[in-house]
Amino acid sequence: MIKDEKSLNEKQLIREFFSDVGSAYLADQDIILGVGDDAAVIKNSKNQCSVLSIDTALSDIHFFSDMDPSDIAYRSVSISLSDLLACGAKPSWFILSITLEETSTDWLSKFKSGLEDISSEFCIPLIGGDITRGPLSITVQVGGYTSESDIIKRSTANDEDLIFVTGSIGKSFQSLLNYKEGKGENSSYTRPSLRKGVASKLNGIASSAIDISDGLFQDLNEICKLSKKGAEVYLEKIPHPFGDNLDFSLLNKGDDYEICFTAPKNFKEKISQISQEENVRISEIGKITNSNKIRFFNGKKEVLVGLDGYQHF
Amino acid sequence: MIKDEKSLNEKQLIREFFSDVGSAYLADQDIILGVGDDAAVIKNSKNQCSVLSIDTALSDIHFFSDMDPSDIAYRSVSISLSDLLACGAKPSWFILSITLEETSTDWLSKFKSGLEDISSEFCIPLIGGDITRGPLSITVQVGGYTSESDIIKRSTANDEDLIFVTGSIGKSFQSLLNYKEGKGENSSYTRPSLRKGVASKLNGIASSAIDISDGLFQDLNEICKLSKKGAEVYLEKIPHPFGDNLDFSLLNKGDDYEICFTAPKNFKEKISQISQEENVRISEIGKITNSNKIRFFNGKKEVLVGLDGYQHF
Repeated sequence: MIKDEKSLNEKQLIREFFSDVGSAYLADQDIILGVGDDAAVIKNSKNQCSVLSIDTALSDIHFFSDMDPSDIAYRSVSISLSDLLACGAKPSWFILSITLEETSTDWLSKFKSGLEDISSEFCIPLIGGDITRGPLSITVQVGGYTSESDIIKRSTANDEDLIFVTGSIGKSFQSLLNYKEGKGENSSYTRPSLRKGVASKLNGIASSAIDISDGLFQDLNEICKLSKKGAEVYLEKIPHPFGDNLDFSLLNKGDDYEICFTAPKNFKEKISQISQEENVRISEIGKITNSNKIRFFNGKKEVLVGLDGYQHF
Repeated sequence: MIKDEKSLNEKQLIREFFSDVGSAYLADQDIILGVGDDAAVIKNSKNQCSVLSIDTALSDIHFFSDMDPSDIAYRSVSISLSDLLACGAKPSWFILSITLEETSTDWLSKFKSGLEDISSEFCIPLIGGDITRGPLSITVQVGGYTSESDIIKRSTANDEDLIFVTGSIGKSFQSLLNYKEGKGENSSYTRPSLRKGVASKLNGIASSAIDISDGLFQDLNEICKLSKKGAEVYLEKIPHPFGDNLDFSLLNKGDDYEICFTAPKNFKEKISQISQEENVRISEIGKITNSNKIRFFNGKKEVLVGLDGYQHF
């Protein structure tokens, strides 16, 4: 999306300044997963965990202020739900904190209809809200449930696991370009469609997962770093909408909201079955290695590809 | 704080545009209390509910951008916890979504120390975070627990209940004036101290409660409206720091983060005991009536006082 270069990226900032605040109380408060993964996980009981994720979307950074307000609403909630699905959780509710420049009941009515669309799609109610006045921004907190054994973390990829992605990578970036040019399909950008069906079937199959928000290579790198592993990626196996003579950085633009996950080889057939059942393309694009870096291959040739995708900060 | 007049205030906007999004799913998702109260309440099990509240604090609206970053952090989290305490819940964790203009590690280090202060005070860990770049704003989501029978709502005040407030009303406004003038005590504004001890003893005693964020009269009016009741308020009984010849609107400036609660007469002695145990002044300032309006008395004389306190929007 709208790129920004900085020495410290969002993940580094979060690690340095927020990862250990009150960490002495994590166990007492039954927190299984805290700052740094897709979502936070709290153990409610023996068989149930709450899974929580928060995302702030800013006007003209994470969405365009002149987009249809219903799309702004849909997109903001969808992006936040994406983290939850990647964790293997079933969404249950959402809370909204919105900052608005002015009160336009027309704008708010349209915005509400977008909230209703995604609420109906996931059968989740809006359970709390806060409105303040200022530069347009939307913070969405989503909550859901899973069992402790069903949580899919970023940090648990294993050597030799295969790497998979759902859908077509870069489709949303193409859709963004279409939106800017005012022609062609733009709904992948304005209303990112989540892989709810596939996500609900990955428990017990995926060894790790992340939603592709910042860019495929950057997000895969997050799995590798947290799992203390490396990877080999076969670029020609990544489905994309860009045609031949591809600039590989187009695959790392972010905003895909597809799922990148790893799984042991023996689940290959099962994954192919899920792909058929859900009618969603799932591509095997590489494998996890016991090194500490990601190597990229185009056919048999190793190529250098930058890892930095979208930087939030 | 920094006032703003608008035809539709925050509560009206929330009711009109957000109160019924996905409300058909509330029961299925075990939501006991949704949009519109201090916090949202989710039933986890027979004996436990999760209580959630979100608040966005904007630079130069809800805090001053030149405040010590540790105070900005403390204040933002404290304000969010205040809602939870007023619901009768015990805070358990918090999640932060921060939007920053730039990366200053000095600023962030100080900000972190403020987070650590309030984290230690309440023994709650930070369990999730999001950082984006834009105009400085801080959204804090807090979560805690209580049993279903211990939830204190805004909507359950009864006729003849007495009305109480903790502390001194307007102290934070005085503190804000001191901050602006650069002299005198300003910690009531920069680091609002919550009535944790009193709040933890109001379960089973308070028939309704609200934290005084927008202004005593406006917040009491919220209890009355939601409970479909009226009230009589005895202005001379409200403790304040302003001396004689009081302009009563000074009692309605908001930001007090004291608790306004109602309770049946027979708990009067018990409440006095809590006040002594916790060493917090608790003043009886009026009573709930079976009318639909709030009447104000100064001694025996009825006076007209505006209800509108701070408007978020």
